[in-house]
Amino acid sequence: MKAGIIGATGYAGAELVRLLSGHPNVDGLELSSVSYEGGRIEDVYPNFFKKVSAELKKADVVIETADVVFASLPHGIGEGFAKACIERGKPFIDLSADFRFGSDEAAFSAWYGKGYQYPDLREYSVYGLPELNRQAIKAKNKRVIVGNPGCYPTAATLGAMPALIKGLVGTSAIIVDAASGITGGGREFARSYHFPECADAMSPYKVGCHRHMPEIARNFAVIAGRAIPLVFTPHLAPMNRGILATIYIPLADAQPVSVPLHPPSKEIAAKTAEIHALYAEFYKNEPFIRVLSLGSVAATNRVRQSNFCDLSVHLDQTGSMLIVISAIDNMVKGAAGQAIQNMNIVCGFAEDAGLSTIPALF
Amino acid sequence: MKAGIIGATGYAGAELVRLLSGHPNVDGLELSSVSYEGGRIEDVYPNFFKKVSAELKKADVVIETADVVFASLPHGIGEGFAKACIERGKPFIDLSADFRFGSDEAAFSAWYGKGYQYPDLREYSVYGLPELNRQAIKAKNKRVIVGNPGCYPTAATLGAMPALIKGLVGTSAIIVDAASGITGGGREFARSYHFPECADAMSPYKVGCHRHMPEIARNFAVIAGRAIPLVFTPHLAPMNRGILATIYIPLADAQPVSVPLHPPSKEIAAKTAEIHALYAEFYKNEPFIRVLSLGSVAATNRVRQSNFCDLSVHLDQTGSMLIVISAIDNMVKGAAGQAIQNMNIVCGFAEDAGLSTIPALF
Amino acid sequence: MKAGIIGATGYAGAELVRLLSGHPNVDGLELSSVSYEGGRIEDVYPNFFKKVSAELKKADVVIETADVVFASLPHGIGEGFAKACIERGKPFIDLSADFRFGSDEAAFSAWYGKGYQYPDLREYSVYGLPELNRQAIKAKNKRVIVGNPGCYPTAATLGAMPALIKGLVGTSAIIVDAASGITGGGREFARSYHFPECADAMSPYKVGCHRHMPEIARNFAVIAGRAIPLVFTPHLAPMNRGILATIYIPLADAQPVSVPLHPPSKEIAAKTAEIHALYAEFYKNEPFIRVLSLGSVAATNRVRQSNFCDLSVHLDQTGSMLIVISAIDNMVKGAAGQAIQNMNIVCGFAEDAGLSTIPALF
Amino acid sequence: MKAGIIGATGYAGAELVRLLSGHPNVDGLELSSVSYEGGRIEDVYPNFFKKVSAELKKADVVIETADVVFASLPHGIGEGFAKACIERGKPFIDLSADFRFGSDEAAFSAWYGKGYQYPDLREYSVYGLPELNRQAIKAKNKRVIVGNPGCYPTAATLGAMPALIKGLVGTSAIIVDAASGITGGGREFARSYHFPECADAMSPYKVGCHRHMPEIARNFAVIAGRAIPLVFTPHLAPMNRGILATIYIPLADAQPVSVPLHPPSKEIAAKTAEIHALYAEFYKNEPFIRVLSLGSVAATNRVRQSNFCDLSVHLDQTGSMLIVISAIDNMVKGAAGQAIQNMNIVCGFAEDAGLSTIPALF
Repeated sequence: MKAGIIGATGYAGAELVRLLSGHPNVDGLELSSVSYEGGRIEDVYPNFFKKVSAELKKADVVIETADVVFASLPHGIGEGFAKACIERGKPFIDLSADFRFGSDEAAFSAWYGKGYQYPDLREYSVYGLPELNRQAIKAKNKRVIVGNPGCYPTAATLGAMPALIKGLVGTSAIIVDAASGITGGGREFARSYHFPECADAMSPYKVGCHRHMPEIARNFAVIAGRAIPLVFTPHLAPMNRGILATIYIPLADAQPVSVPLHPPSKEIAAKTAEIHALYAEFYKNEPFIRVLSLGSVAATNRVRQSNFCDLSVHLDQTGSMLIVISAIDNMVKGAAGQAIQNMNIVCGFAEDAGLSTIPALF
Repeated sequence: MKAGIIGATGYAGAELVRLLSGHPNVDGLELSSVSYEGGRIEDVYPNFFKKVSAELKKADVVIETADVVFASLPHGIGEGFAKACIERGKPFIDLSADFRFGSDEAAFSAWYGKGYQYPDLREYSVYGLPELNRQAIKAKNKRVIVGNPGCYPTAATLGAMPALIKGLVGTSAIIVDAASGITGGGREFARSYHFPECADAMSPYKVGCHRHMPEIARNFAVIAGRAIPLVFTPHLAPMNRGILATIYIPLADAQPVSVPLHPPSKEIAAKTAEIHALYAEFYKNEPFIRVLSLGSVAATNRVRQSNFCDLSVHLDQTGSMLIVISAIDNMVKGAAGQAIQNMNIVCGFAEDAGLSTIPALF
Repeated sequence: MKAGIIGATGYAGAELVRLLSGHPNVDGLELSSVSYEGGRIEDVYPNFFKKVSAELKKADVVIETADVVFASLPHGIGEGFAKACIERGKPFIDLSADFRFGSDEAAFSAWYGKGYQYPDLREYSVYGLPELNRQAIKAKNKRVIVGNPGCYPTAATLGAMPALIKGLVGTSAIIVDAASGITGGGREFARSYHFPECADAMSPYKVGCHRHMPEIARNFAVIAGRAIPLVFTPHLAPMNRGILATIYIPLADAQPVSVPLHPPSKEIAAKTAEIHALYAEFYKNEPFIRVLSLGSVAATNRVRQSNFCDLSVHLDQTGSMLIVISAIDNMVKGAAGQAIQNMNIVCGFAEDAGLSTIPALF
Repeated sequence: MKAGIIGATGYAGAELVRLLSGHPNVDGLELSSVSYEGGRIEDVYPNFFKKVSAELKKADVVIETADVVFASLPHGIGEGFAKACIERGKPFIDLSADFRFGSDEAAFSAWYGKGYQYPDLREYSVYGLPELNRQAIKAKNKRVIVGNPGCYPTAATLGAMPALIKGLVGTSAIIVDAASGITGGGREFARSYHFPECADAMSPYKVGCHRHMPEIARNFAVIAGRAIPLVFTPHLAPMNRGILATIYIPLADAQPVSVPLHPPSKEIAAKTAEIHALYAEFYKNEPFIRVLSLGSVAATNRVRQSNFCDLSVHLDQTGSMLIVISAIDNMVKGAAGQAIQNMNIVCGFAEDAGLSTIPALF
């Protein structure tokens, strides 16, 4: 099978190239790039030298020649490519936000500043979080547009899903406090990503108004069956890869408590174990979710280069707040890896085909 | 005046050495170290070569010869030194937790695993957060023990104080999500601080049960006049210096809201400006607090090497949650710098004497 | 085939575990560890959770049950294990320096402070740099001890070999100036590897007297057929992985030149192209050597996580000094990857089996 | 006295602002910026908030109102400003390369691609390396243009000077292998300085043809009284600040030696001590040169934020190559600090006025 990548020279595009080159069911890549059209991927990414060699063509050529098409483009410009793929019966896996909001064009346009070009395409689209929508993704067969989730929404949704489904969540807001590696900002230069201004520093950004907020909120509502108040703050951390989301989930059964005198009690430990068991059970068949043992704490360097999402489960000292730590590699489970996982589901391959990298601690 | 430092070879001790060496009212240093007794500080810290030169003596010698004594020791072993200083009428500024809990020995022993050795010393002690306790610190005159605050509690308390005092805070928990540079772990080796295991990674630790939780909770209760539910999660970030605290403060006047369709509205902007004005007014005379302009976001690399605490004020999209970002240099305002600020207050020096470093962006 | 690793919990050992777990010809791992005997590898390295699971046994057990044995131990303690393997006809691939010096026990003991325990074992041993000794490694069949090269010697030798063999090298010293990522120091704590003391800093060490000097010198002499004066300086660079060696090779045909007025001339460019062609030709069949195009410069982030050695070829402005930049991943081509490459040769597998990782730019 | 800075918003300009704001003899700053004219320095550098506040004016205004003028501009555009200063009898301290080559316009134009605009200005100019030219700088009085040295040339020249002056240097090339922090690339964006492409990596650049080569060669020739063959290779290291130069100096009295069997001998140790004593004696009165004790190794984190140049002295195992490690902070002794040192000399201030920062280990 031939895989095509539109926008192959951005970071997510290049990560797709890297991962698909080792995919057992893919025997050829077709790549496009507007900025480097006519050039070669191994000249743009010299790390590919002697391993990947491909010309950078026009998007149209990719769509004609590939059997499945990935698009890694800025938001709001890929709908025409999606349409062309649907017309040809080729799966289209989109890493932008264009197909993450389904028929809710109002939410999309409120946050992304433009409406849908071809609203009807949403009848073919599905939100590509396999742990939430695996059956729906599969059911679309190959005439499908997968809206691959954002990196923060992936980490946040996987971390909160069991609690939301099992009705553990109270009425106060869930707070998602998350830090991303600098690759999350992409390949384009900006002051925030200039080494001397982000190295050795922590910087929040878009506090209270990041575009991933409505995506996360939408996921929570879908899962819980009701609107869930949500606060989301992203931070830039001085590292290349990784997202670490610390998710504060107010528990429905929390008793009013005063500030605790003592460190965590046996009661708290028992309640933590109970929720941990619930999480472990919930995800027991998921190939890419690792619910860590009680007492372990998720961290980005334990999932590096892999498609895993690591989750650890904790309670605050009063037992009224569930704290879930969710760690992913933003370029893999947060982007290219999840897109391939979606391709695997759509195409009927083993879900972990091409995604078996063992995490590198460093 | 001669300043003495007991425990001068730990990171906070060495930072005291560095900052006090440039202090206009200090004309000599007396240093002690158990590990390096008989050695010289410039051999332990070669960066001091040709700038600071001092023998490492016994603590007793320091107490006899210095006019003011700093102690940068592990928790629970410095009370005897404090007693000796009080008997001699010399100010004792303690960077451990031993004097942060005042007469509340129960809280201290619950979290630090031991009781007070000389409980009566607390009649001389004061919690050394100048922005909270300046008059009390001054009033003690020189027969004083200053319990210098922890690094996280400094960032958290300064960030929440105006909201707490002005009655903005609702009944849900305040959540403090904070990241620290690796120097916060001190000079002793540990797996968490071994470069290959913490570089290029974000790692939470002591989730829900860090010792700074009760210190922060105590401050909040003192300031608000009532117990405030609190959740605190610290993280290790791959940087040398800095603490970035993202503080989620539920507002008392929050209306029930559904998940927002739209990005922040004019109403939210107006409410943010109001709270920002309140913060700016509250701290307008503080030499080391910078309330950033509306729209700016606090970050650790804007306070690097300085005694500043930068605060930025934000609301979530629904206007129900105040998000304050608080950034300090953990070694300066979070440790040695604040200790010197306390010395300045106790001794009647200009409060910013020796603390006028302009932050270095890099 | 079952592979055994003695000393599986050090960094090189763990990298062997990670890489061998994906090796198509290896269907089981047997691991030993003195420090963690009885424990499990996935508890020591939580990044392995759900991917690798193995008990940590005694070395003896590993030797009995494995078909090929790797040893990743401190220098000077593994000869007994080598002997046991030779007696059983099992290949022994040693990552320590014990078998790098062959019959030259004097050199080994001068630099490593101890003599050989079983000198006769050297009749079975071979220096495991495949690009130099592939036939010799193959010829030993399975009754073989491979002395896997040091990380710096790998980068240095591969960079200088074509010039040495082709007689380009003059009489002055070759200078190897190299920087290593911090993982090169291993998993044990030390001040040099404590994050706050090595982050954001460059530090030379063992200037003029590092143990890899005699290993490099030995290689150069073997290749050139004469002693080559050598100066070697290693540095610690604030990164996790990678060795960057900048190799200064005085050319035999250099004319006396004065300091140049002008930037590189056409003559220099032509001479550079000539030497570049020689390097490209020399390595054209090597699976893991990439001679970069003229004008490109080797860098550690283009070989990250891979078994490649990238080489770029340059001349100084006067045309009298060849400057070769050699970049490897210290944990892969500089340790575990090369060991597996040696196993592949010894066992008759495809030389790149299990080593096909595409380098990750970040 | 009022100090003016033309080009105040680049990194070196901003570092001048930061350091001059604390200078005891400077009581006002006049700043200019083409990019931000009409703005304020504290808006471009938020770290200055509440500490430095100044409007960004036109260069002409700065020249009229300041008593001494610094220029931190791209190469080749500042001569007109220098002329204006000379006409007004105001010292002009230039951080570009325009005045580093004195009357040797041929060398400048060969490497910088343009000729001098006002060649006659060189009668007022002096190369501003105080340790080499202090008397000449002083002798110019205030009608002076100081060509402030490049960062690499500062580190290299200070490291080699004693050996060059004392006639220790043989006839082979001196090799300067150096690594710089990313701030050396300045504030403008470029792929090389984009965090994901330089973090966690070592990258050589301009191998054999960097513009600092002729500047270093010129210094060496001036000092030695003869042309000295020179090879220079710069590298980018993943750190914010610092230059680490490893300087290989062939000794004139070196005996032909074969590759050594043994680690360094007593003879080598004695010879090292002799050269170390020579270095220590040579620099004994220099306020900013620290010749480290025998056995210590210079590193960038021991000079961080300071105007020091740390030097350590080593021999290779054969005693034929002197290896000097030279460490500076590229933004201080390599740029703004040295410029202020020059101002101090020109204006008759204490040479270390405003430059007394104690290095920060982290």
